[in-house]
Amino acid sequence: MNALVFDGDDDYEVRDVPEPELEAPTDAILEVRCAVSSGTDKHLFDDPAVEEGRILGPEFVGVVHETGEAVTAVEVGDRVVPATMTHCGDCFYCERGEWANCTDGGWELGYTRDGGRAEYARIRYADENLFHVPDGLSDEEAVLAGSSLPTGWDGARRGDIDPGDTVAIVGAGAIGLCTLACADLYGPLEVVVTDLLDARLELADRMGADGTVDASETDPLEALRELNDGHGPDVVVEAGGFEETYELALRAVRPGGTVSVIAYHDDTYGTPFGDVWSKNLTVEWGYVDGIDVPKALSLVDAGRLDLDPVLGERVALTDIEGFDRLESPENPKVVIDTQR
Amino acid sequence: MNALVFDGDDDYEVRDVPEPELEAPTDAILEVRCAVSSGTDKHLFDDPAVEEGRILGPEFVGVVHETGEAVTAVEVGDRVVPATMTHCGDCFYCERGEWANCTDGGWELGYTRDGGRAEYARIRYADENLFHVPDGLSDEEAVLAGSSLPTGWDGARRGDIDPGDTVAIVGAGAIGLCTLACADLYGPLEVVVTDLLDARLELADRMGADGTVDASETDPLEALRELNDGHGPDVVVEAGGFEETYELALRAVRPGGTVSVIAYHDDTYGTPFGDVWSKNLTVEWGYVDGIDVPKALSLVDAGRLDLDPVLGERVALTDIEGFDRLESPENPKVVIDTQR
Amino acid sequence: MNALVFDGDDDYEVRDVPEPELEAPTDAILEVRCAVSSGTDKHLFDDPAVEEGRILGPEFVGVVHETGEAVTAVEVGDRVVPATMTHCGDCFYCERGEWANCTDGGWELGYTRDGGRAEYARIRYADENLFHVPDGLSDEEAVLAGSSLPTGWDGARRGDIDPGDTVAIVGAGAIGLCTLACADLYGPLEVVVTDLLDARLELADRMGADGTVDASETDPLEALRELNDGHGPDVVVEAGGFEETYELALRAVRPGGTVSVIAYHDDTYGTPFGDVWSKNLTVEWGYVDGIDVPKALSLVDAGRLDLDPVLGERVALTDIEGFDRLESPENPKVVIDTQR
Amino acid sequence: MNALVFDGDDDYEVRDVPEPELEAPTDAILEVRCAVSSGTDKHLFDDPAVEEGRILGPEFVGVVHETGEAVTAVEVGDRVVPATMTHCGDCFYCERGEWANCTDGGWELGYTRDGGRAEYARIRYADENLFHVPDGLSDEEAVLAGSSLPTGWDGARRGDIDPGDTVAIVGAGAIGLCTLACADLYGPLEVVVTDLLDARLELADRMGADGTVDASETDPLEALRELNDGHGPDVVVEAGGFEETYELALRAVRPGGTVSVIAYHDDTYGTPFGDVWSKNLTVEWGYVDGIDVPKALSLVDAGRLDLDPVLGERVALTDIEGFDRLESPENPKVVIDTQR
Repeated sequence: MNALVFDGDDDYEVRDVPEPELEAPTDAILEVRCAVSSGTDKHLFDDPAVEEGRILGPEFVGVVHETGEAVTAVEVGDRVVPATMTHCGDCFYCERGEWANCTDGGWELGYTRDGGRAEYARIRYADENLFHVPDGLSDEEAVLAGSSLPTGWDGARRGDIDPGDTVAIVGAGAIGLCTLACADLYGPLEVVVTDLLDARLELADRMGADGTVDASETDPLEALRELNDGHGPDVVVEAGGFEETYELALRAVRPGGTVSVIAYHDDTYGTPFGDVWSKNLTVEWGYVDGIDVPKALSLVDAGRLDLDPVLGERVALTDIEGFDRLESPENPKVVIDTQR
Repeated sequence: MNALVFDGDDDYEVRDVPEPELEAPTDAILEVRCAVSSGTDKHLFDDPAVEEGRILGPEFVGVVHETGEAVTAVEVGDRVVPATMTHCGDCFYCERGEWANCTDGGWELGYTRDGGRAEYARIRYADENLFHVPDGLSDEEAVLAGSSLPTGWDGARRGDIDPGDTVAIVGAGAIGLCTLACADLYGPLEVVVTDLLDARLELADRMGADGTVDASETDPLEALRELNDGHGPDVVVEAGGFEETYELALRAVRPGGTVSVIAYHDDTYGTPFGDVWSKNLTVEWGYVDGIDVPKALSLVDAGRLDLDPVLGERVALTDIEGFDRLESPENPKVVIDTQR
Repeated sequence: MNALVFDGDDDYEVRDVPEPELEAPTDAILEVRCAVSSGTDKHLFDDPAVEEGRILGPEFVGVVHETGEAVTAVEVGDRVVPATMTHCGDCFYCERGEWANCTDGGWELGYTRDGGRAEYARIRYADENLFHVPDGLSDEEAVLAGSSLPTGWDGARRGDIDPGDTVAIVGAGAIGLCTLACADLYGPLEVVVTDLLDARLELADRMGADGTVDASETDPLEALRELNDGHGPDVVVEAGGFEETYELALRAVRPGGTVSVIAYHDDTYGTPFGDVWSKNLTVEWGYVDGIDVPKALSLVDAGRLDLDPVLGERVALTDIEGFDRLESPENPKVVIDTQR
Repeated sequence: MNALVFDGDDDYEVRDVPEPELEAPTDAILEVRCAVSSGTDKHLFDDPAVEEGRILGPEFVGVVHETGEAVTAVEVGDRVVPATMTHCGDCFYCERGEWANCTDGGWELGYTRDGGRAEYARIRYADENLFHVPDGLSDEEAVLAGSSLPTGWDGARRGDIDPGDTVAIVGAGAIGLCTLACADLYGPLEVVVTDLLDARLELADRMGADGTVDASETDPLEALRELNDGHGPDVVVEAGGFEETYELALRAVRPGGTVSVIAYHDDTYGTPFGDVWSKNLTVEWGYVDGIDVPKALSLVDAGRLDLDPVLGERVALTDIEGFDRLESPENPKVVIDTQR
């Protein structure tokens, strides 16, 4: 089958690889319908966990093609999205509903195991990790439901937004935009988004942001602190992923507020306690769990969550050039047609 | 001054009564701008706590006319709404944020003390009980903020609605409609309203209900139990006030769900444990607290809460006949122009 | 094998019945070590769900004797307690952690299916429903961990006890006493127990109650309302099971407090809204979930929960007379030696 | 009057200073009964907010000596402890119960304003900031209730300890020891304390720690990670105040756990996201609020909180030499007799 794989150096390439096969009675094989990608995936090329030949892509929609004998929750022909955080359902952490901490799982799809930018993909613990797509949704409407959407959901949820709260989102990439959509489920007074890129802020506008701050022109710390009658936001979601955005979030939030760190961080960043310790903050950080994916899909189906602006143009799996061409801030997620 | 008072028998009458005066250094006198009333107020005529000559009306907007010497949070000329639940701010309950349980307060405006259907009204513990109205709001847009709106807010809040939940509201009077508006702040998948009166359900439609059940034509228990894929609503708010509506709420909610009883109940009603005990319910019941009034006013000001359909036609304080004429399901709250 | 069964009339009898067999790949067969019983079990004889010949007893300890091929979490020889609320792990409710509402389970052990007062017992969904007993515990120390202990745990947990709260427990049967032990895990200022039977109150004393109210001598409503500086208890756990105890709980709790109804109720009881509606109560009622059984077992093992006073004398499974002889308030739970 | 003041250089000295006077109608003057101090107070000498001549000491017990005319909650002769976090009761933050963030208060006693190591002390907003001491308590039993005890209480509370959780406390100074006492109110399975000083760990032993780790001999990270069946503690309270202890807390806690940072931090510390981001942590940090002081005092009065080991020997206010002599790990808090 065709697959988009890491070439071991610094790029993708299309290869003809063997189709995946069932390896355990709890596995399922999906025929992939479409996947998404984005320019930021390329930072994985520097991660030693990503081996040459790895099929990338944690985020896709598929149809169940084959199931192991122990699989009971899905059947051949079901349309599904896989959870980005593979989880076994039985370990110390799964018993507590903390899927991302699963001792036999975690993020592996398109990272330590093959993902979905291919014609077929294998899913472990299929009963636990596959979610049915409502009939009313197109493949594209569902494609973010395994990863970007629940990441935004968790970013908003962990922010502990109360009705009437003022919320700021730092970073308007796919995760930040999904957080924007989900923050609205908590009845905020105002959601303001900041980013350095004008194209991203336009997307935030289209998705209903109450305000945007172009950090390339305005000091975002000053702008965010003016919110909420000058107290600063009640909740800040850090969806940027840099030391600067982490610091901005901590400094901008009002005393007693909550910072939800949902962007991926893998370095040692300074926490400026001298300035923020006395603010009595709650800080939540981490991966997506995905435990609310069925609810999120229902809300997309009901028209209460509209993620369309996050999706960019469509490109064939084998069209590497098209893929490169489409990468841009206006296209947070390029949609990959895995059957072409 | 003119005031609409209980005649001691079974009706209102307009009387010329003395203007209220400051009685404690923490008092304030308001010049009332407008008040609201509804047909259901008349059940108070049977309550022994309501004496002949009482000025009714817990729900109004006014401008501060005079303040006691200990009042610091409001000034003459400020436009304000009073909290329906008078609270002292210092007792065992106020320290816990439970205003409705205040040992020197509770519901007294228009009940055990004079209310606001008059040209002037006295407010006790003014610093605690008056909320500023944002400049952008008309008197009418703010008039429900002291009582009906926070009752609906508390009804929704105590329902503990999670994003994606299915919610049912039993009863589409002013309280039920305000609950409908506020439920939307919690990201529900679907909010369905049931009532016996078609005119009320039309108002629910106008306010954005996802569905309505006309209980005069359809068995509401059956209809509500079909929701949520046949599990029944995750949350039911009882805003009806009858034994039948209380039972409906308990029977309709799904196992493990929450029933928020926000309608006023003053009788002994049967709780059908035989049918519902094993459902492991959480039941919340009680008065409004009003602790979130400032947030509610901000959300009205931002256009996120629209209570306009709850308000009916406008009538002069002295126009008793007009008042009777306007009482109807289409007019959940008649607006009283207290300066005419 | 020997089993203690319902004779179809109004008593138990010992019968020689076939040993249970595996019926599904997720089943396990336990060799029962010991079970417990109490006089109140006899109310089940009137319940049409309990058929003639039913082996009673939801509460026992056993050793895994045989497992279905799909069972992975326990092995032959493991010492375990079964969850009273059988749950499948995969349904709408199990996904939400609401085991008691499982659509393919709920209370069935010793009720709608055979229980554990026998030499062997079959457990459905063994991976979900069996909990390992720590080595340091005797069979008797673990025997309440499947039902009475988690019921008391849930009774206390649902009461939402904050450190420093005043707690009252209505009813000092096995459930009430287990609630007493568990309430202490929430840092209460004072836990007071009321019952009609002096022998029960002596057990409460032995288990560390800070006070007891003998309702046969003192008006319990008056006595409980004097607690908490005259405000009444912050939390009342109803562990009695009668309309009188339900009413007592509602009337005694302070305004704004929480009533946790953990006793079994199967009738329609009057809820005196006229007296308690304005108290703004939270009421939680329902079955045990059992989700915290592993934690509860750890705390027993660590000596932080001591349930010894709940257990009465030991009797052989076949000694029906001894069993009747031991039933008494001093013996909330008679321990049944299932291998004699 | 005599007062122990900062000499402007690097030490304390005893001075004869004017008695404080009422400056606002909401003030009260206390006759100080006793105060506490500790060696670590001396780090304040480097803080520019602490001026020459400042009377240090946020933590003391006194008797009300004089009250402003607006004070109603305390009377002359009442024995009280002041809240360390002065709060006005009316600002944006006080309305939310966030006293430590008060815009007209915060930590000022013995910091930006005179504290209690003197014969008399002035308290602002006396109605808000004074708590009555139960009659049954000695001055010494109550002296920690304004600051160290509620800091430990908040440290435990923010850790969100569930019954059965494994807790680690990093640092066994006065704050860590108070946290140890308060952690027990949440029903933990096990509370383990680590410190570098053997004398401190002995105090932790005396206060009921389930285990101690001497970090001068054993790698504390390794030792803490072995807890909880090798998952690491569910909750870690950072009561040390160094970059090393902050890092230890983050690295030791189990995935999905909570870190409560209660020690004072005023520098920029590295947060090792590379190692801990994927653990999905909740981190709470900040000052004490003190909102639960009345409950804490009640629990001390009831014998449920015993802080005696935290208190060291007693010294006269004027005995500077004795004061220096007593500073030691065995004496976390030296008790100062302010009337000698």
